Amino acid sequence: MEQLPHLVIVGGGFGGLNAARSLSRLPVRITLLDRRNFHLFQPLLYQVATGALSPANIAAPLRSLLRKHRNVTVLLGEVIDLDPAGRRVLLRDGSAVSYDYLVLATGARHHYFGHPQWEAQAPGLKTIEDATLIRRRVLLAFEQAEKESDPVRARALLTFVVVGGGPTGVELAGALAEVAHKTLRHDFRNIDPRSARILLLEAGARILATYPERLSQKAADGLTEMGVEVRTNTAVIDIQPGVVTVRTGESSETLPCHTILWGAGVQASALGQMLARHTGAALDRAGRVIVGPDLSVPQQREIFVIGDLAHLAEEGKPPLPGVAPVAMQQGAHLARVIQARLEGHEGPPFRYRDRGSMATISVARAVADLGWIRFSGYLAWLAWLFLHLLYLVEFQNRLLVLFQWAWNYLTRNRAARLITGVNDEAPLP
Amino acid sequence: MEQLPHLVIVGGGFGGLNAARSLSRLPVRITLLDRRNFHLFQPLLYQVATGALSPANIAAPLRSLLRKHRNVTVLLGEVIDLDPAGRRVLLRDGSAVSYDYLVLATGARHHYFGHPQWEAQAPGLKTIEDATLIRRRVLLAFEQAEKESDPVRARALLTFVVVGGGPTGVELAGALAEVAHKTLRHDFRNIDPRSARILLLEAGARILATYPERLSQKAADGLTEMGVEVRTNTAVIDIQPGVVTVRTGESSETLPCHTILWGAGVQASALGQMLARHTGAALDRAGRVIVGPDLSVPQQREIFVIGDLAHLAEEGKPPLPGVAPVAMQQGAHLARVIQARLEGHEGPPFRYRDRGSMATISVARAVADLGWIRFSGYLAWLAWLFLHLLYLVEFQNRLLVLFQWAWNYLTRNRAARLITGVNDEAPLP
Repeated sequence: MEQLPHLVIVGGGFGGLNAARSLSRLPVRITLLDRRNFHLFQPLLYQVATGALSPANIAAPLRSLLRKHRNVTVLLGEVIDLDPAGRRVLLRDGSAVSYDYLVLATGARHHYFGHPQWEAQAPGLKTIEDATLIRRRVLLAFEQAEKESDPVRARALLTFVVVGGGPTGVELAGALAEVAHKTLRHDFRNIDPRSARILLLEAGARILATYPERLSQKAADGLTEMGVEVRTNTAVIDIQPGVVTVRTGESSETLPCHTILWGAGVQASALGQMLARHTGAALDRAGRVIVGPDLSVPQQREIFVIGDLAHLAEEGKPPLPGVAPVAMQQGAHLARVIQARLEGHEGPPFRYRDRGSMATISVARAVADLGWIRFSGYLAWLAWLFLHLLYLVEFQNRLLVLFQWAWNYLTRNRAARLITGVNDEAPLP
Repeated sequence: MEQLPHLVIVGGGFGGLNAARSLSRLPVRITLLDRRNFHLFQPLLYQVATGALSPANIAAPLRSLLRKHRNVTVLLGEVIDLDPAGRRVLLRDGSAVSYDYLVLATGARHHYFGHPQWEAQAPGLKTIEDATLIRRRVLLAFEQAEKESDPVRARALLTFVVVGGGPTGVELAGALAEVAHKTLRHDFRNIDPRSARILLLEAGARILATYPERLSQKAADGLTEMGVEVRTNTAVIDIQPGVVTVRTGESSETLPCHTILWGAGVQASALGQMLARHTGAALDRAGRVIVGPDLSVPQQREIFVIGDLAHLAEEGKPPLPGVAPVAMQQGAHLARVIQARLEGHEGPPFRYRDRGSMATISVARAVADLGWIRFSGYLAWLAWLFLHLLYLVEFQNRLLVLFQWAWNYLTRNRAARLITGVNDEAPLP
């Protein structure tokens, strides 16, 4: 096999995993590099953060997912630099991996708009560790409130602020409302969890801004009905331990709160900047690599970028959004491009087939925009449920998640309410 | 309710949880204090450590377990000292809780026989964090071996040493053999996981020393057949990063190995020593508090000690073992003792009803000693399975565990093979 072209994929998310699977049909050797040993189903991460699912339910070992693709080797390793001139990637352990073709699919992290110091107070939700950290903070806030004799401090402990009205923020706020109003209802003796205050802050004019206006309104109504205070046109201007300062129009306000969750912005992975430094590749403001129609980097045509790290604008349209279907379709498209390259001609341009988008607000409530039809409520929730189960990559996980959702739906319970990793937690303010 | 006697229970394990449940029938107020917000089903912890189950499958929030016991308040807090003269326990957060009766049920931790520095190299298995740490180390060893070009280093990476031939050591060694020989069989390209070497070291003459000799032999045969090297009469005399030194008879040997797991000794929780310091209560060599027949401390009769922290020798017999049934029966017995005390007379002495013990070696293989009958193999495994499911405290967890066991049994898969918490991991040697 040594003479076959070597294709290195960095990142085992939706884009990288799908690229490895589709490219494995070609006469190539593939190495998939990831810092983690598992593929993570990020869209359900908020359910881990709120105790409905366990981490292993939404993650699957990359090795077992690619077990039958015999020309794919999975290696655990973190890429710390690129060497496009030498066609190598450099790993943290000091080794280097050579490639003939390179696919960068390392996604994005949250972004604090020039205030990186906010991260410690307001964690975002991108990794399993983020999710268990948020779960710990939320559950500890209720535990602390139960012991607190000062009513002002107890009030702050029971105030939860979610920053950002995109899908992640909406889903987190809805799930927090469920935790407070349903799951924990009978669990405490000194506090009433239903008195918890949950605020969803959005700087723009409406939540779910990429959805049609009618669905944004449905989502806001649904959240309000569940007890979430939805505040639009409200920008966060400062975050300090235990307090958020916001500006609405001309006036500003400080909100004493113990728990702040960040769902506001994303920044592409640092690999984009490394690539730009070495090749002069152009980046957009969010640090994404601007790629050509065939997903390759114009300055270095054997390097491809897909998923949340890529900026691809189809003619006359805004750039494609950072969502799973784009990454998956781009991963699959690479097989056509690289097959064409191996045969000595150009690959076809990528065309995104937008099948719509959905966000869930709570159990039995969601909004869906499929382009040709828009709907909300119970039916949208069933569609959301069905699609998310379908895309979970392992069959066992599908059954486990289905069972736990059914159970949680019937009992309003969330069994995965564990406060773990307490040793690495700083003392509470 | 203020005038009712206040009963404080420290620890929400098998003993403390059962005490809270049975004591809640009495006209008392109960406060259950625990450092963690969940009850942990420790006997299945090794299945989390080897990727078969998720932490939440074997843990359940104490609050939901005690939700319907309206006179029980659960508080998250760590007891850092006792004040028997003032009838108070002191918590890490600076607060104090007063009691009329105190129940100490804080169990035991592993013990390194005067070598506490071994802990960093050879973690034990008592908490969820221990289990995910072990899972991470075991899985990372295979990942590192896949990348290792030096065969000597690769050999050490694929050598796993389990210290201690008690039930925990036996179960860990058996599960590791399954991981290497079945679960990971097809997952790697450069190494054959089946070549992994798994050693079980026992200082005494046989493994499972508390079982009848015939069952010890069955267990050793079962492990050997699965590829585990069982070494009895072999004592660990030193542990350094990457190497264990052992002595068998007169000769000593160094074993280069990357992963060392500790299942050899336990030491009672530090609360025993605090109690001894303040009241002069007697401790045994393992730090357990020597209690009277009614489970109270002879020097301070309103304080009770149960479970792994208690040393109770029924007349003419060795002290009761540190196992879940003893703790559970003692917790239940406290209701009779304290009821008698409230009525102004002495409580009845505790009598342990030994219903037998079981250890599992691998899927479809276990040993059972029920006193009136001893058996091993498939039937013993089914009995083990049934009993462990029965005692899992939450119904949802029973179904989830049953489903995952059935799935793992049919597919030889272990889906919870996540390497998490990588950030707090020291670099590999």
